[in-house]
Amino acid sequence: MRPIDWIGDGARLVDQRLLPHQEVWVTCRSLADFERAIRDMLIRGAPAIGICAAYGLASVALQGGDLEEACVRLAATRPTAVNLFWAIERMRKVWTNSPGQPERLVQEAVAIHDQDVAMCRSIGEHGADLFEGSVRLLTHCNAGALATGDYGTALGVVRSLAKRNQVQWVWVDETRPFLQGARLTAFELQREQIPCRLICDNMAGHFMQRKQVDAVIVGADRITRLGDVANKIGTSTLAVLCKEYGVPFYVAAPWSTLDLAMDSGWDIPIEERSSLEVSHHAGTAVAPEGVTVANPAFDVTFHPYITAIITERGVLRAPFADGIRIMDQRDEVALGQSGG
Amino acid sequence: MRPIDWIGDGARLVDQRLLPHQEVWVTCRSLADFERAIRDMLIRGAPAIGICAAYGLASVALQGGDLEEACVRLAATRPTAVNLFWAIERMRKVWTNSPGQPERLVQEAVAIHDQDVAMCRSIGEHGADLFEGSVRLLTHCNAGALATGDYGTALGVVRSLAKRNQVQWVWVDETRPFLQGARLTAFELQREQIPCRLICDNMAGHFMQRKQVDAVIVGADRITRLGDVANKIGTSTLAVLCKEYGVPFYVAAPWSTLDLAMDSGWDIPIEERSSLEVSHHAGTAVAPEGVTVANPAFDVTFHPYITAIITERGVLRAPFADGIRIMDQRDEVALGQSGG
Repeated sequence: MRPIDWIGDGARLVDQRLLPHQEVWVTCRSLADFERAIRDMLIRGAPAIGICAAYGLASVALQGGDLEEACVRLAATRPTAVNLFWAIERMRKVWTNSPGQPERLVQEAVAIHDQDVAMCRSIGEHGADLFEGSVRLLTHCNAGALATGDYGTALGVVRSLAKRNQVQWVWVDETRPFLQGARLTAFELQREQIPCRLICDNMAGHFMQRKQVDAVIVGADRITRLGDVANKIGTSTLAVLCKEYGVPFYVAAPWSTLDLAMDSGWDIPIEERSSLEVSHHAGTAVAPEGVTVANPAFDVTFHPYITAIITERGVLRAPFADGIRIMDQRDEVALGQSGG
Repeated sequence: MRPIDWIGDGARLVDQRLLPHQEVWVTCRSLADFERAIRDMLIRGAPAIGICAAYGLASVALQGGDLEEACVRLAATRPTAVNLFWAIERMRKVWTNSPGQPERLVQEAVAIHDQDVAMCRSIGEHGADLFEGSVRLLTHCNAGALATGDYGTALGVVRSLAKRNQVQWVWVDETRPFLQGARLTAFELQREQIPCRLICDNMAGHFMQRKQVDAVIVGADRITRLGDVANKIGTSTLAVLCKEYGVPFYVAAPWSTLDLAMDSGWDIPIEERSSLEVSHHAGTAVAPEGVTVANPAFDVTFHPYITAIITERGVLRAPFADGIRIMDQRDEVALGQSGG
């Protein structure tokens, strides 16, 4: 399911908070619409929010709005995923080079979206090449079609493997507190008839201990120059479990997730979200009134825990800093060929 | 809060499924009442279900019912916690030695309850002695007053530490899918004005990585002769995280949790509960219809991960098998003195 599309004067996106039980499409035209869509998580997933911000800027440009203000406001919606800032900067270059041509911004936003889909397919093929035989993968959160332009990063690899008949089943972490795994990943896999087993986040270790997980594969919200990865809270725990039980731990992400200006994962800002996400379920309080809650939305997995990072440019392995430096110089034009 | 009490011809217990928002007390008189209370988790926690089963047998005896049948049916309610079988066997000895004297069974059940409370206080004091200065503990599930006769095992240690002004705060894992942490542990701590911070299970590793957890302390449902521990699903993941981040991992449990007939944790039966606990929240489906779910209620933490096991008889450390053998021969009479 493509989570977002350009509709001539704005974007139409599915409200992912209501999936899988309701499929409600929302139209965003004003800057406030786009801001709210990202901040309130109608759309989420690092690549998808980059695409959404690009469409937001295209929309503001068509209306003759203040693009600088729009950049500032869109950049303030969520702090951790770097693709948001990457997309905004890419759009900024276009209007700096082509002032007074809003159509150019629309073209660029659509290009960002199209390229993201091509990247995901390329990531899927590169990732699938890493596996032999039929495997039981475990994934966390949703790094699927809904988190990207389409197809997905971690789930892109799963889709490519499924085409090769290599997926025995996928363990789906429900991913508290927002339940992206239970709601979105299980939904995507079910629609594609890829076998999955939904579990609570705290069950992954049990199944690794019992040798029922062949690999873990997740997306990323930001990757530093050293290969440290910010991703949905709970990811770093999976990486520790993988180390303990000898299970490969893979990260799948487009090159735009790399923040080459940042060395260490310790420097990545971690978004703290509302306590209500934890204390309430489906509008009902589960915890006692007034309890103190901590709700970091992301955590950092440091590069020594990572077996490989799968990008559209190829697969990175330790030493990540070297591979990232070399691969960063590669021409992006090759993308069309590497897609499977 | 004492979760259960004898009322002359049966037991009165609080329906823990409705806490903290509703405090509904249920009276159990028939065997079917007691069976349902344990199986449907109106009462839960290894020591508490042992006490409940003992009261169930006392009740059946008073009514002149079939005690053998009652044993079989109560033993079949839940498979993992060994205290249930221990309490049933203790009751069986009484009616074998004192046939036709139902009052003796009532006395024995009340004694099991009273002794459990004394054991918890003793566990609390032994455990508190392990800590110096003010600490930030993390606990999983509810090993509190509600899981025992009163006072708690892991939370007994927290209570004893709080009396000594040594609790900075307690990280409370919400404990999916049944949310015993969010609903019960946060409720108990709040009532006692012990500072706590509620988190999702997948956040514990993040806070350990950031050095904000000084120790993890949990209860147990069964401990084998080698010191392997079955406890609420997610416990073994915490133990792996503790190993990785150098955080002590403590288990607190009464001696009745030891299953000396079992060597290895691999042999402990793991209860698989309804998929609805995972796929639905507060009666509302969160996952797509028909998704496959796995829902093991417990996992096994093997003894090499455990820093110490805190019992009413004292603190066990590696090699656990030796300590368990020696301490098993100690006279239980000393209990009254070791209670703080």
